Amino acid sequence: MRRMTARPANAHQARLLRLLRDGGPNSRAQLGDQVDLSRSKLAVEVDRLLDTGLVVADGLAASRGGRRSHNIRLAPGLRFLGIDIGATSIDVAVTNAELEVLGHLNHPMDVREGPVAIFEQALALAAKLRASGLAEGFDGAGIGVPGPVRFPEGVPVAPPIMPGWDGFPVREALSQELGCPVMVDNDVNLMAMGEQHAGVARSVGDFLCVKIGTGIGCGIVVGGEVYRGTTGSAGDIGHIQVEPEGRACACGNKGCLEAHFSGAALARDARGRRPAPQLTRTGRAARSGGAAHGRDVAAAAAAGDAASLDLIREGGNRVGQVIADLVSFFNPGLVVIGGGVTGLGHTLLASVRTQVYRQSLPLATGNLPIVLGELGPAAGVIGAARLISDHLFSPA
Amino acid sequence: MRRMTARPANAHQARLLRLLRDGGPNSRAQLGDQVDLSRSKLAVEVDRLLDTGLVVADGLAASRGGRRSHNIRLAPGLRFLGIDIGATSIDVAVTNAELEVLGHLNHPMDVREGPVAIFEQALALAAKLRASGLAEGFDGAGIGVPGPVRFPEGVPVAPPIMPGWDGFPVREALSQELGCPVMVDNDVNLMAMGEQHAGVARSVGDFLCVKIGTGIGCGIVVGGEVYRGTTGSAGDIGHIQVEPEGRACACGNKGCLEAHFSGAALARDARGRRPAPQLTRTGRAARSGGAAHGRDVAAAAAAGDAASLDLIREGGNRVGQVIADLVSFFNPGLVVIGGGVTGLGHTLLASVRTQVYRQSLPLATGNLPIVLGELGPAAGVIGAARLISDHLFSPA
Repeated sequence: MRRMTARPANAHQARLLRLLRDGGPNSRAQLGDQVDLSRSKLAVEVDRLLDTGLVVADGLAASRGGRRSHNIRLAPGLRFLGIDIGATSIDVAVTNAELEVLGHLNHPMDVREGPVAIFEQALALAAKLRASGLAEGFDGAGIGVPGPVRFPEGVPVAPPIMPGWDGFPVREALSQELGCPVMVDNDVNLMAMGEQHAGVARSVGDFLCVKIGTGIGCGIVVGGEVYRGTTGSAGDIGHIQVEPEGRACACGNKGCLEAHFSGAALARDARGRRPAPQLTRTGRAARSGGAAHGRDVAAAAAAGDAASLDLIREGGNRVGQVIADLVSFFNPGLVVIGGGVTGLGHTLLASVRTQVYRQSLPLATGNLPIVLGELGPAAGVIGAARLISDHLFSPA
Repeated sequence: MRRMTARPANAHQARLLRLLRDGGPNSRAQLGDQVDLSRSKLAVEVDRLLDTGLVVADGLAASRGGRRSHNIRLAPGLRFLGIDIGATSIDVAVTNAELEVLGHLNHPMDVREGPVAIFEQALALAAKLRASGLAEGFDGAGIGVPGPVRFPEGVPVAPPIMPGWDGFPVREALSQELGCPVMVDNDVNLMAMGEQHAGVARSVGDFLCVKIGTGIGCGIVVGGEVYRGTTGSAGDIGHIQVEPEGRACACGNKGCLEAHFSGAALARDARGRRPAPQLTRTGRAARSGGAAHGRDVAAAAAAGDAASLDLIREGGNRVGQVIADLVSFFNPGLVVIGGGVTGLGHTLLASVRTQVYRQSLPLATGNLPIVLGELGPAAGVIGAARLISDHLFSPA
């Protein structure tokens, strides 16, 4: 079932593949302008890529005077699988080589059911996508999990909300099942890569992507590349202390951001608050965990429920204080807010903005946009496809 | 007076110059191993560098079998000037091309006297170093200032503790006076570069360097390069809020870290505390500003004064809390503590370590050393020399 047998032989070929992935079909002449290769060297590299089958001819380009240049594109049959394991649901999508989503399925499921059950479900969703005719097989798969990952080995490490996953060889197991190369990363990093590839962060070099779902995490992009830190835990802001003697957190500490504001915390607050927020759909929510509760608070707030609005504002203030510190420290060019709780939308965004613009140094906030993600649940799966394509479009 | 007229013509030459700077004299054969160039291409590039005079022959290398290779080194007459403007003193040093300090002068002076007076003094110190025979002239100068800098232009921007400096064209003015290229950066970034080049952070790719002097700042190194952020203010952690309704800060906000712990804050606390710490040398301290006060607290603590020790522990706890958050966020491979207040040494370090190891996620602290800087006041001037040499040893 393994299909993409060739890899780029050198850095020039890798760069050409990525340009075709990110910019779509293009003429030899215009690619030459972008890679800074002589006409003859470019011709050699493109011919070699055509020989491997990774790239195919795609008709004649528009004339630039003189002989018309040939268009080339990535092989139209290449297929990547993107899997995004959330705390309470699984997203699986298949993309083409340009990372366009051809099909996308979602299935609610608690990550605490453990890796065996989760992967059985994820593989079933992948098989369904394949059976629908979108892919004959997969050339590679990217997968995100909601916790820290030892990136080189593709193994989750001590993930607080994922009992049973610690040390599970995700990359190896999934690669064996799928018969193709697999890369594993933190779900928040994938969201950042997705928004960078096809969403609101296109063309931004340094940015933060804060995901507020059942937990809270932050993707850090430096110079266009995800920064993962020394042991892969960079961006793990959910356990920054916001209350010295605050609530007990799943990680064992007290007063963590995540314990005070996240999908799970919001649901707890909503249940405890008098007057109780006017929650809707609580039956389903109670069954499927905290994130759904978060969505219920959002729905109630959207319907004008004052208690729900208060909860969101308070939470936004807390997240905003942490983001304000990170903005002072990291001086990003953009802050993206995403994840399940972005159903809370503009109320949340307003609180976050207020805190950041009030507390961070003016020099860091002068031209700083703070925006909601554009891609919703597609960000993670597109990021996953991007992750594996970055790997495959690198020199072997 | 301008001496270094040539610049490397391409990336290979730049890489060779940096290898000779960081590793000292070397044989052609061993350099060839490091730059991954064919023997003939390497010979061409080395010959071109010899023609420019940036590199000179340095005798025969030890035999590796066959013909003996020639040693080469950077021109022994190259001289860089490093200037480190602190809040309360100026450090000026001259280095050779390998960034070894040949001479170093320090002069106490308040940065609030403004750029004209400060530069007059800095230039006088540089002239004194030149007159002592250490340099016939300077091939380039790096300079650090204690505030945010718009890096491409070399201009301080809205620096809270530097009235009179906002928008002053430091790079241009100094370049005109010295007759050589000049690069300007934040003092904390230079400290990080210094510790990386010749101190405790050698060979560490991702680390944080926290400078606690009159103010507090943080140098961020990602993949061996200083990360400056979108507008040059990255690492500006002195204005992270540690007390919601805390002390008024020079920046206009309340409860900033810098207002609660720094050389200046420590001095204020020492004066207000009952029983008063047993300060020494307060006459000199009162004249020369907060940092000297900080040193007095250090001296009293070293002599066993309980009130001084308490002040340091409290301060260390506060800085430690902020560093704990940054460790969770950035997952560095090393944290370096430096600056004037490191006279507080191991008492401070113990408090910081306690907070970080208690509050950050175990995955981020597992192998994380938290250490004092090795170079003291030399870190800034070596970093300044490194900054300008990075600029000069880049393709023109």
